[in-house]
Amino acid sequence: MEDKGSDRVSQKDALARHLGIRLIEVKPGYARAVMEVRPELLNGVGVTHGGAIFSLADIVFAAASNAHGPVALALNVNIQFLKTTAVGDVLTATAREENLTRKTGLYRMEVRDGKDELVALAEGLVYRKTK
Amino acid sequence: MEDKGSDRVSQKDALARHLGIRLIEVKPGYARAVMEVRPELLNGVGVTHGGAIFSLADIVFAAASNAHGPVALALNVNIQFLKTTAVGDVLTATAREENLTRKTGLYRMEVRDGKDELVALAEGLVYRKTK
Amino acid sequence: MEDKGSDRVSQKDALARHLGIRLIEVKPGYARAVMEVRPELLNGVGVTHGGAIFSLADIVFAAASNAHGPVALALNVNIQFLKTTAVGDVLTATAREENLTRKTGLYRMEVRDGKDELVALAEGLVYRKTK
Amino acid sequence: MEDKGSDRVSQKDALARHLGIRLIEVKPGYARAVMEVRPELLNGVGVTHGGAIFSLADIVFAAASNAHGPVALALNVNIQFLKTTAVGDVLTATAREENLTRKTGLYRMEVRDGKDELVALAEGLVYRKTK
Repeated sequence: MEDKGSDRVSQKDALARHLGIRLIEVKPGYARAVMEVRPELLNGVGVTHGGAIFSLADIVFAAASNAHGPVALALNVNIQFLKTTAVGDVLTATAREENLTRKTGLYRMEVRDGKDELVALAEGLVYRKTK
Repeated sequence: MEDKGSDRVSQKDALARHLGIRLIEVKPGYARAVMEVRPELLNGVGVTHGGAIFSLADIVFAAASNAHGPVALALNVNIQFLKTTAVGDVLTATAREENLTRKTGLYRMEVRDGKDELVALAEGLVYRKTK
Repeated sequence: MEDKGSDRVSQKDALARHLGIRLIEVKPGYARAVMEVRPELLNGVGVTHGGAIFSLADIVFAAASNAHGPVALALNVNIQFLKTTAVGDVLTATAREENLTRKTGLYRMEVRDGKDELVALAEGLVYRKTK
Repeated sequence: MEDKGSDRVSQKDALARHLGIRLIEVKPGYARAVMEVRPELLNGVGVTHGGAIFSLADIVFAAASNAHGPVALALNVNIQFLKTTAVGDVLTATAREENLTRKTGLYRMEVRDGKDELVALAEGLVYRKTK
């Protein structure tokens, strides 16, 4: 089934649960997730941790790229941090497929706040384990 | 004081505590931290989550770049995932300064497992808020 | 004048002339250029050289970011190579602004072939020399 | 033969010749090249063009990654620009292998000027066409 990938990611992703990230929508090449900024997601200066923002982006990246069926392994991600956010902000991340070959997939992730302003942008490349 | 940056990062970093990351050493331009892979740090396929590995790298990046004194804001990070790890593995991350100007700093982060093998490599750029 | 940046790039860019790159359109935050793949732009295996494709992307990046007026210095660029091209292909690159602050600007560059298919994608960050 | 890759790159690379880049040393996982900054390699503000610096880094990247034998295709490169250079400067680039798997290779490229100071740093990932 095509949604094997999304199931695998959404229901069994322990870090997603630990950070309060919820996958809202997954289909081949696309995913969307939401994370409310809670106190445990802050860094030392009181704003949302880069690690939390990356994790949110990484989860939609994994969901979108695995939803085709074959296992997709992240090779690299380039992330740009554009705006700081704080406790109470609700962040939404989307992953969209930009390119797909038999062996690789390229995805663009956007993280936005409640005002729909860009918080972070990322590009991620996967290697696809096809036989 | 020079260690303001490291204190700021190490003692008040809520996400670091939430993920079990401990900063071991911080000095201007250098930092080292350790994270044991616990079940809550896994992804949907049972290996260490890319978000956990990034967070570990991000914490030494922030510590090393802020330890100079002036606030250093992450502009972007490019991370390469090289080896999967699993529950029980202990990961060590280091950040080393590659370039420092009045306004920017470039850091290389390495994440290694207990066998000293590379798990991830990252390059991170900061903007320095100097007056 | 606002087009100082574009003039600076288009008329005096020696490498652009050396590679046969023509800037077609420049406005603040946007630029478009064209390069025909000639034999001197190939690599050792007979396809368009990554260096030529990057140069095309870099030229629209510089034009779009400098067209605001203040000098914009490239800090880093992340480029994804998606499709090979060959002699005779005509490549078009565009740069679009994704984020602009007082001190930084983020741009997305797309390089496409004559069929409008993606040849390369890049993200570039500049530091803006404002007083 | 193992040096097929290096031959392929060094003797037939048309862009390398067009830019005056000379490959000095190539072995599996390592390469070094030199480029003198001539007037045709400048950008619109009179310093060495980012495209020329990238091309130099790309040529050692291709040489080092292809010298193993199997064809290595560049997937992406992340480049950091650290120092401007000008006409007459002689730039040296090296590529060193950081990771090699059956299907991928990761390389670090350093570009330095005559004072051995860093001009640019890059990370490049290849896909290896093994059967």
